[in-house]
Amino acid sequence: MSNVKGNAIVAQSGGPTAVINASACGVIQQALGSESITGVYGAYNGILGVLQEEIFDIGAEASETIELMKTTPSAAIGSCRYKLKRIEEDRADFERVLEVFKAHNIRYFFYAGGNDSMDTAAKIKKLSEELGYEMIVMGVPKTIDNDLACTDHCPGYGSVAKFIAASAMEAGRDTESLWTFDTCAVLETMGRNAGWIAAAAALARRDEQDAPHLIYVPEARFTRERFVQDVRRVHSGLGRCFIVASEGMAWEDGTYVAEDKGALAKDSFGHAQLGGVAQVLKKIIEGELGLKTRWMMQGLTQRNAMHFASRTDRDEAFICGAEAVRAAVSGTSGKMITLERTSNSPYECTTALARLEDVANGEKKLPRQWLNEEGNMPNEKFIEFARPLIEGEVQVPMEGGLPKFMRFERKWLPKKCARYDV
Amino acid sequence: MSNVKGNAIVAQSGGPTAVINASACGVIQQALGSESITGVYGAYNGILGVLQEEIFDIGAEASETIELMKTTPSAAIGSCRYKLKRIEEDRADFERVLEVFKAHNIRYFFYAGGNDSMDTAAKIKKLSEELGYEMIVMGVPKTIDNDLACTDHCPGYGSVAKFIAASAMEAGRDTESLWTFDTCAVLETMGRNAGWIAAAAALARRDEQDAPHLIYVPEARFTRERFVQDVRRVHSGLGRCFIVASEGMAWEDGTYVAEDKGALAKDSFGHAQLGGVAQVLKKIIEGELGLKTRWMMQGLTQRNAMHFASRTDRDEAFICGAEAVRAAVSGTSGKMITLERTSNSPYECTTALARLEDVANGEKKLPRQWLNEEGNMPNEKFIEFARPLIEGEVQVPMEGGLPKFMRFERKWLPKKCARYDV
Repeated sequence: MSNVKGNAIVAQSGGPTAVINASACGVIQQALGSESITGVYGAYNGILGVLQEEIFDIGAEASETIELMKTTPSAAIGSCRYKLKRIEEDRADFERVLEVFKAHNIRYFFYAGGNDSMDTAAKIKKLSEELGYEMIVMGVPKTIDNDLACTDHCPGYGSVAKFIAASAMEAGRDTESLWTFDTCAVLETMGRNAGWIAAAAALARRDEQDAPHLIYVPEARFTRERFVQDVRRVHSGLGRCFIVASEGMAWEDGTYVAEDKGALAKDSFGHAQLGGVAQVLKKIIEGELGLKTRWMMQGLTQRNAMHFASRTDRDEAFICGAEAVRAAVSGTSGKMITLERTSNSPYECTTALARLEDVANGEKKLPRQWLNEEGNMPNEKFIEFARPLIEGEVQVPMEGGLPKFMRFERKWLPKKCARYDV
Repeated sequence: MSNVKGNAIVAQSGGPTAVINASACGVIQQALGSESITGVYGAYNGILGVLQEEIFDIGAEASETIELMKTTPSAAIGSCRYKLKRIEEDRADFERVLEVFKAHNIRYFFYAGGNDSMDTAAKIKKLSEELGYEMIVMGVPKTIDNDLACTDHCPGYGSVAKFIAASAMEAGRDTESLWTFDTCAVLETMGRNAGWIAAAAALARRDEQDAPHLIYVPEARFTRERFVQDVRRVHSGLGRCFIVASEGMAWEDGTYVAEDKGALAKDSFGHAQLGGVAQVLKKIIEGELGLKTRWMMQGLTQRNAMHFASRTDRDEAFICGAEAVRAAVSGTSGKMITLERTSNSPYECTTALARLEDVANGEKKLPRQWLNEEGNMPNEKFIEFARPLIEGEVQVPMEGGLPKFMRFERKWLPKKCARYDV
């Protein structure tokens, strides 16, 4: 058991997912039942809420509100993309975090996020030790990108995978119905550096007819010539072609396909990317093969699709949050909860721990050997990995034909520190 | 009772919907149980399948396959956008249709589609009378656009409305979580001439905080100045702004916003529209207000979202199909099944009949008085109309975490006519 007694704060960071609130709910419900933890607080908009001392009392929220977090997508506590200054160059941000923690007797810090967040958490822990402020720091994994090191997979991925696969399946039936007119289609997915999300569309394929027929990810070599050949081959066989492409796809010289300068005008910020990968591929297919091509880009809807979230993913997200608290009150600190697959058939998964620093410095790409030789379709190894993660549906409470989501009342803690400008 | 005895053919036309197969299933199951109808056939790819004599025996399909149509999106029989030549100028196409019908003793023609399809059906009926070929022609309403005349609403609309509203709700929570970074967002919906689909996103709003905060449709005047004012006002109140925009939005001079020539390069076919409305609006917000803006364009996924279809819509689609057969075998011809709302609270809806010509020549836009004065949000009149249409969920059979859809075996009828080039 930990000797540390005090308040706990939970914060969410980076891009939201369908199940990051389920993780936070795990933290909150477990913390509220723990003797070592007195108050349970939320940091409004991630670490920004700590820096600006915008903290609210989650323990004061209705228990139904907290329970509804399990079926509410996105970051209900508030998220941010603020990067703390580097501790070696400027300790100001980190010292401020500790100042606020001390002022509110916050002794437990639970941070749900990706590798940048784990880096931040690790540094906060280090500084608290230097300053002799006793506290426990725990990381909770979160990312739709599935690119965190040290864990079999990440909470958030299973749900986006399920939604993208269903979308490819459904939109693929449109192209199959109307191929005499709309012959090709391109679905663009998120995934700036890793192809895990686009790859998930392969789960939609039960036979050769099924969409998608081609999947492109950043981990495989991509050339215009090979792409045109691929589409021509699929089209000559089936009379149609449905493609899934990751936004992070790059040409052989390393430039993003989405930045194809000839194809797209610059936007008002001078960014080359106005559209995306899907529009560039559409242009190539129409230009080189003369085949009418539809495109789609689901954007934010894909990472928040709670209405079709994976039950497996949602449950694991909750467990990761609850386990972080269990580990913390047992005296563990400086670790992130990880998922360990102990069996694939039947699927069984348990939690373990990894050092925050090891997660912070790692990145997990889609293994090249999980793709076919041509690099245009994930193979059985990927399917074996991903299939269990999309199993099951979440029953979302409905009202008037639409999901019922929660929102916090936000009872703010009184400010005790001087103002701090970020 | 009709004295007409012979085979029936069912055809699907135009853009697919989540529930057009439910309508076809209603036709098929009802026709298979009817004494006046001998064989039940499907026209592969709509009227193209009739012209090219590509017809298959749906009665020979497994009954489980036919039952699964109720939960399979898009046009399983195959659809097309082929427009028959005008009968006044060139009767060739119409005479060909009759030639094929005669060759296979097809005496019942069920056509699921929009107003163009009802026009085609009306002309086929007229020519069959001229030529003295006894047959029954019935229309089944289908369109996500909800713009058909003579009917309270159209099968297909309720499901796209439910999905778009849920998408706005979910993606809206993303902007709410991450507004310090991604401050604005634009969701583009289908709807080339009418704003029904974009308007449906208003169903997602339960209070002022909820997305979407602004909705733009073709039926209201749209100017750049007013748009910038709208976004500035919402942003200054909430710190964020979530917008839904119909692809059919036009500037005051009548040109589509999506064709904004300064903003977007031409594609390889020389079309001005490479991107869409969402990207144009993003460019305006970023340029005029300096607020980072995300955008999304769900494309084909929105009209095929069976995984979250409206139960009300799906059931009504089925009933329209079954009613078309009931009416046909009772001797009715030249009519389309319509939906009549007899009560709104509780919602009750029955079917009626409209002349094919009346549907063919009509178009139903979103009434201007169903929008607020500013023209940037549907009002209570619209909500009252639309809410019942999205009620209930469809239980889709699942397999491996994803929907299980059907596909026909397609036992082709032997060809009896000469080849015909379309």
